[in-house]
Order: sequence, then structure tokens, then C-alpha cells
Amino acid sequence: MALIVQKFGGSSVANAERVMNVARIVTETYAQGNDVVVVVSAQGDTTDDLIEKAKEINEKATKREMDMLLSAGEQISIALLAMAIDKLGYPVCSLLGWQAGFSTSSRHTSARIKKVNPERIRQELSQKRIVVVAGFQGINKYDDITTLGRGGSDTSAVAIAAAMHADKCQIFTDVEGVYTADPRKVKNAVKLSEITYDEMLELATLGAQVLNNRSVEMAKKYNVVVEVLSSLTRAPGTLVKETVKMEKMLVRGVTKDTNVARISIIGVPNVPGIAYKIFGKLAAENINVDIILQSVGRNDTKDITFTVSSDHAEDTMRILRELDFTSGLQIDCDDQNVAKVSAVGAGMETHPGVAATMFRALFEEDINIQMISTSEIKISVLIDKKDADAAVAAIHAAFIPEE
Amino acid sequence: MALIVQKFGGSSVANAERVMNVARIVTETYAQGNDVVVVVSAQGDTTDDLIEKAKEINEKATKREMDMLLSAGEQISIALLAMAIDKLGYPVCSLLGWQAGFSTSSRHTSARIKKVNPERIRQELSQKRIVVVAGFQGINKYDDITTLGRGGSDTSAVAIAAAMHADKCQIFTDVEGVYTADPRKVKNAVKLSEITYDEMLELATLGAQVLNNRSVEMAKKYNVVVEVLSSLTRAPGTLVKETVKMEKMLVRGVTKDTNVARISIIGVPNVPGIAYKIFGKLAAENINVDIILQSVGRNDTKDITFTVSSDHAEDTMRILRELDFTSGLQIDCDDQNVAKVSAVGAGMETHPGVAATMFRALFEEDINIQMISTSEIKISVLIDKKDADAAVAAIHAAFIPEE
Repeated sequence: MALIVQKFGGSSVANAERVMNVARIVTETYAQGNDVVVVVSAQGDTTDDLIEKAKEINEKATKREMDMLLSAGEQISIALLAMAIDKLGYPVCSLLGWQAGFSTSSRHTSARIKKVNPERIRQELSQKRIVVVAGFQGINKYDDITTLGRGGSDTSAVAIAAAMHADKCQIFTDVEGVYTADPRKVKNAVKLSEITYDEMLELATLGAQVLNNRSVEMAKKYNVVVEVLSSLTRAPGTLVKETVKMEKMLVRGVTKDTNVARISIIGVPNVPGIAYKIFGKLAAENINVDIILQSVGRNDTKDITFTVSSDHAEDTMRILRELDFTSGLQIDCDDQNVAKVSAVGAGMETHPGVAATMFRALFEEDINIQMISTSEIKISVLIDKKDADAAVAAIHAAFIPEE
Repeated sequence: MALIVQKFGGSSVANAERVMNVARIVTETYAQGNDVVVVVSAQGDTTDDLIEKAKEINEKATKREMDMLLSAGEQISIALLAMAIDKLGYPVCSLLGWQAGFSTSSRHTSARIKKVNPERIRQELSQKRIVVVAGFQGINKYDDITTLGRGGSDTSAVAIAAAMHADKCQIFTDVEGVYTADPRKVKNAVKLSEITYDEMLELATLGAQVLNNRSVEMAKKYNVVVEVLSSLTRAPGTLVKETVKMEKMLVRGVTKDTNVARISIIGVPNVPGIAYKIFGKLAAENINVDIILQSVGRNDTKDITFTVSSDHAEDTMRILRELDFTSGLQIDCDDQNVAKVSAVGAGMETHPGVAATMFRALFEEDINIQMISTSEIKISVLIDKKDADAAVAAIHAAFIPEE
């Protein structure tokens, strides 16, 4: 008998029919002799409806009250799923975040899970009940309701799996698993049977959007085996774990990210401490900088170019203009015409030829590389946005054999 | 500076505009220098929408999960009202039932408040915040969410007022107060400026439907001064309290109740213990019996007639048929053609002429009295339903002078 945590997102419980579908998946797992804890998000459009109600009253509602409002969404979906499971004849109990033992930081709308005390969940499981838990929510030290922000339900599920040493944490989505590239764009994209946490983290950051990054970080930290799979097809998905069976693919995923802005500061004084002033300030404002390129100084100035997420472009420009040495300097921002394309694979660490193969593939397609960034398991290039899909296809073809 | 508890029902917060209206009433009270605790129900149709969602999935949802589902309704409305108050520039904090300290019995969908621990409310008030509390809900000893059932938010408000020794508990409704009769039916109906708890209890039971009975019982027990008033007109309402200024009206309210069924058992054996068997069994099943009439036994049988609420008619008939001595007996139920009309007034205790005046008024209208019941402050008659409005008007005219 295993302990399995299953997580279903908002679209999986969007209406009565889908709630019943989820109930069938859950009860089949239970009927096979497993203990099952289910984490659910708010129903498809509930969150949007609630945000709309809030806006009608106060465009600048406090984050505390937004958390109070939005957390009602999961409360509705756990009750409905529990009713569906009961309808199928299985014992069940729904629990809110605070009832399930979720303690979080105090930061409303983007709280961090500090601790999960699964005592109540254990007690319900010992009564042979299926336990349905509200994802995305917890309480802070003042007993106020908090929410975890984007993708929070994934993190809730992994946190329960970690706290209870679950055998597996299944994240049900609308895709069948993690692919080597977006299967809608690249026709030879292959579903991976296994992938490491680090590979998944690189893929998630780069826009694969299958699993929230915080959940993967937590899974890595507590060594939780995560399976990404579809709630519709019920085919085996992709296992995310520490070590995976060696497969022949050096590159395990090729992704593009168009949510990127390239910022350039032209003619920066060529004196020590400039880079620290720029990137230290951005870090202090919680802006993640990705690729950085610094031109070799000609005369007494140099150019610094870097990328940030498009969402941060405006803030970044403001911060740069406020620096003491930038007055009069030319600062450019392009968040319309660039894309970042990346190849990810744990195996590339020990295979120095990967970068060369990737650059050749781009050269043969006549695609110009603007910037390059590498990590131990990833190579990213910044290119013209119009070339992005062709670049992904070319890199994918160079590394991943057609089946 | 006074502590004032204000309660607003679902129709008062049905949409953004009404929520803002409530916020204005609340903040005006606060701006006059008072501490204010506001209790709200779920928005107008939220509860119905949630019940509909539940029915689509499971017609026989457990009461525990219904409580989990429905309590999300007040969660939404407290957050929205807090946002509205914040919008007007006043400090505010919303609290769920459990956060506000509501401990209840374990009986889901109709729990009783066992204790209110107002520590958190006090703490927020000491920070000069307006406190918005979710009515209708609490938690039981297992930390499960419970709801109080019909009219529960009135009870929540009175319970807070009692626990915190509030100076006044204002219940805002869509009527301007308690009238001597239904003002839509009786043109000379007068709004009472004050009324005793006992009079209010009799009026509430009889269908005046202004205040939930449990809330009046609790107000009486803890001597909470309740004011019933309109959230629209803002005119002074009716104060409900222990003793009231003597007014000249012997009768303070005339009501009709058509939600009544008359049950008759014909030819019951004239032996001891029969009444006990019937009414003991009904009491055990939580069915309140109102007027009881037992015919004088002719020969060796007698007839027993009594009234129950129409909602209980079906259950009552089933229970009667299951009794050991009723097989073969004629049992009739009329829940279509009868109405109960009552005159209530604390003063009638000491004025024996009240019943006579009432009966004369009915006689002069040619209205036949089927059954009579009296208490210290009430006289009720069961009559034909078609005569009910005429009866109320005649009794009202006999006791309450035209203004």
C-alpha cells in the first residue's frame, strides 16, 4: 500500500462533469489499496469571477482581503470534489489549508509555505478516508488566510508529499507529460519518461509551464518523486526525480521563451563597481537578470546588455534611470523582437560538443545569435523573435532522433 | 464611545452598489466615535448558486460538505465589504467565523453557538479597525466548519454583542422595524418604537419574520438591546429589550401564519397514555406541536386535533401512522385551508378582557373560530385561510387606534 498525493488544477474541476472525472481517477487509485490525498485548485473561472467582483468595489483592494476573497475558490472546489467522491460511494473528507496544517509566511498573495503539520490528514487517512485538501492557501502566524501565488497548488501538493513522505506526487494537467519541445510546434517532440529535478527547473524557467518552479525546487529539496500526467488520457506521464535512467538523448528539452526583454546601457564609464551598482540594485528590487553581456571597453566606456522577464522591463528601466551614473546615457529596451531559445540536458555537462552542435544548427538555418548564456545543463541563445520557432525545430532535430 | 454590532443580510450586500451602501452606514457609525463590529451574510444569490453546483454533483451531499461549501459565501461577502470600507478610507479587517472565535456544536447545517471568544475582535478594535465578521458560521470541536442554519447571521450578531457586552446590536433588514401588523396588508399598522423580548418571540414564531427566533432568545438571555431597522431608509427602527415604556396599546402585534397544518385523529381509544404516546413521539422527532384540542370522549373514543408547521405535516402523518394504536383510525391533515391569527402583547396578562374583545371582533366579521390557544401574552385562533386577512384587520382595528 502506497501513499499517493494527486493534484488537479482549475481546468480539471471546471464543471460538474470534470469534477466527476477527477473523482473517478481518485477513487480508482484508492480502490487499488492506496492512501490518497488530493489537492485541488479553484474551479476554472471562479478566481476570475471573484477578482471581477473585487474590482467593481475597489481597484486597489488590500492583499490581505484579496487572499480572504480568493481562498473561497478552493473551498468551493474541495467541497464539490468531496461530494463527487461520496457520490461514488467512497469515504472522504475535505480540508481547508489551515485545517490541513499549512503554515506560511505572512506575505499575502505570494506567501511561502513554512511548515506542513499533517496531523489532521493522517488522522483522516487512518479512518480510511480519501482526503481532499485546498491547494494554494494556508495561514500565517496571525491566523490570517494567505495564498501562495501563481502555481501555488503544485507547491501545496509537493509540500504535503514531502511532509508525509508520500511515495509519489502526481500532478495532473492538460498535457500528457514533459516533452522535448512543445508538441504543438515541433512535430517530432518526444514525451520523456523521466527527467531530473535540475532539468525540469531549467525547462520550467524557460517557459515549458508544465510545473511551477517553486514546486520543483521543493520536490528536489525533499526528494519527492513527482509525476506529470494528463487527467484526460490517463496515459503514464513523466517522472521528475533525482536520477534518471540514462537515455541516449544528450539534450532533453528545447524551449523558447518570448517573455523576455533585452536592455542595453550604452557608454557606461569604464570604472570598477559599475556592474555591482546595476545588478546589486536590480537584485535588491527582486528582479532576476538572466543573460549578461559586457562589451570590452573601448576608450573609457563600455556597453552592458542583459535580459530580464518582460514583466520586469518597465521597473528595470525606471531603476536604471535612477542610478547616479546613468544620467545622459543611452538606455535601450527591446521587449518586442527577441526570444530566448534553450537546450537543456543533464548529460551535456560531460559532453563539450553540445554547444557547437547547437550553434551549427542555427547557422545552417541562417539564424543570428545575439547573446549566449550557459549553465552546467543548459545552453540559451537570444535571437530574433521571428526566428524562434525555426530555431527550436532545428536544435530539436539536431539532438533528438526522430522516432 | 459605544460598541455597536451591526448585521446586514444577504440582500443588503447583493451587489457592488449595495455593498458600498452598507460600507457607508458602517463608516458613519465609526466616524461618530464608535467601535463597530459588522456581521454579514452571503451575497443574495451566492448561496443558491452554490446549492445548485452541489446538486449537479450529488443530490444527497453530506451536511459536513454542504457547510464547507456554503460557508465560502460569507467569506466572499466579508472580503468585499472590507474592500468597500477600505475604499472609503477607513481601517478594516475581515474575520471568518473561526477567526472571530465562534465555537459551535457539531451538528452540521444547524449548529448551535456554544461560545464566542472575542479576543481577536478585541485586538482588531484596539487597533481602531472596523471588524467585519462572517455570520452564520463557526467551527466545532473537531475544527470542522459548521453553519448555524436559517437566520444564523442574526444569531451570530447577537452572540458577539452578548460576548462583548455591546451597547447595541443593530439588525438591518428591508423593513423599517416591527409593526403592529403587516403594513402591506393592514393600512393602519403602526411601527413600534420598542417591544419586549417575549413579545418579539411570539411575533417571530407567528410569522412576522423580522428577526430569527434563536437570536431573540439569545438576546433575552444575555440582555442584549437589539434594534431592527432598514438599511435603505435609515429611519430609527424598533428596539427589542427587556422592559419597554408603557404605551397604551394592550395588543402590540397582530399576525397571521398560513404555514400551518391541522391534523386530526378520529376515534382514538379513550384510555390513559394516548396523548403521551402521540406527543412524546412527535417531540422525540423534533416536531413542535402548537394548538392542541381534545374532544370530550363520547362512548369509549375521542378525537384529537392539533397543529404543526406545514413543513412538518408529512413527517407528522408518517409518525402517526407508525404508532401501535392508529391502524384503522381516520387521520386527516389539512395544510391548505387553515391559518393561525394571533394577537400579542405583554400587557394582556393583567387585562382579562382581551380575549373577549378579540372574539367579538371576529364574530362581527362572521369569522368562525376552529381552535383557540392562549399564553400569558398571546391569543391565537385557527380559522379558515380565506378569512385570515380580514381577521387580522378586524383584530387590529379593535385594539390599535388609528393614528
